Amino acid sequence: MKVLEDYIAKYGQVKPGNVLKVDSFLNHQMDVSLFNEMGKEFKRLFADTEITKIMTIEASGIGIACIAAQYFNNVPVVFAKKSQSVNISSDVYATKVESFTHKKTCDVIVSKQYLHKGDKVLLIDDFLANGCALRGLMDLANQAGAEVAGIGIAVEKGFQKGGDEIRARGVHLESLAIIESMNAETGEIKFR
Amino acid sequence: MKVLEDYIAKYGQVKPGNVLKVDSFLNHQMDVSLFNEMGKEFKRLFADTEITKIMTIEASGIGIACIAAQYFNNVPVVFAKKSQSVNISSDVYATKVESFTHKKTCDVIVSKQYLHKGDKVLLIDDFLANGCALRGLMDLANQAGAEVAGIGIAVEKGFQKGGDEIRARGVHLESLAIIESMNAETGEIKFR
Repeated sequence: MKVLEDYIAKYGQVKPGNVLKVDSFLNHQMDVSLFNEMGKEFKRLFADTEITKIMTIEASGIGIACIAAQYFNNVPVVFAKKSQSVNISSDVYATKVESFTHKKTCDVIVSKQYLHKGDKVLLIDDFLANGCALRGLMDLANQAGAEVAGIGIAVEKGFQKGGDEIRARGVHLESLAIIESMNAETGEIKFR
Repeated sequence: MKVLEDYIAKYGQVKPGNVLKVDSFLNHQMDVSLFNEMGKEFKRLFADTEITKIMTIEASGIGIACIAAQYFNNVPVVFAKKSQSVNISSDVYATKVESFTHKKTCDVIVSKQYLHKGDKVLLIDDFLANGCALRGLMDLANQAGAEVAGIGIAVEKGFQKGGDEIRARGVHLESLAIIESMNAETGEIKFR
């Protein structure tokens, strides 16, 4: 998606350790105009797919998922939570997710009330690197008997294995921008 | 706001310990149609206020804030983060926030890049109880020299002190629904 690639090229910062900082528009400060363009593009890419629910994981996926939902008939958006709150019923599906960013493993849960057999779920997230968060969301959907009808990602690090592994499972995964390579010394970012 | 009160009356669950569970539409599963109605109402309530940025705190405020931003000329939305990520520069404003829900204190940060002197900030959050999260956000804005131009809350627990304390400071605070009282035994919820 050209407009997202342009944002990444203009505002993204490559940091040592394969870190791409896009927090000026994607995951700390958020550009809602851009999110609307992304939402439209997700709808175009999944136009032929029946979607009854959007699922994401806190926190960075939530804004993208909510804006995107507007292009999918305002289907409910559910975000998986990273730790158990006293406000969440113990009646939850749970899985473990290793965070590339935070270098730790955490419990990720979703209430059984909001994910069911029969749901056709579009998973949305801001980043796809090694795919841990997505595999966690797929595990939650699987536990619920829900179908993962598609996966929409803003930025995929194409040089890490997550995206290709998930595509190899036959899941319809679309990333709006795929980074082919990036160089922390020169700051250069190449797209696939 | 009648439509939000109706949602709370219909879907809200009162739990012991002054917990109001509204996670079927507000803060776990999210109803984006409702969020749009809320966004329009925030715009009506702050129609005469210049807003250059919306700030919220992860995670539950993010969806509401992003949808609301669409009614404020798509101003940037910044969410304060609850713990330091390796992806966030150390150049941050930081404060401590005690969570009513999670019964713990956490560090809340925002990058100095995304909050400045001259910003006229609308703070948005899903819940206002004792006001700790809001005071944290106000502290971050204050550190940056930004002006808190207004505060928009979905659900205020009017029987807790947070809202009135903040109003007493002269801040323009609007809550779309204010709970006057609620009863965990009968499930009854009264609005102010």
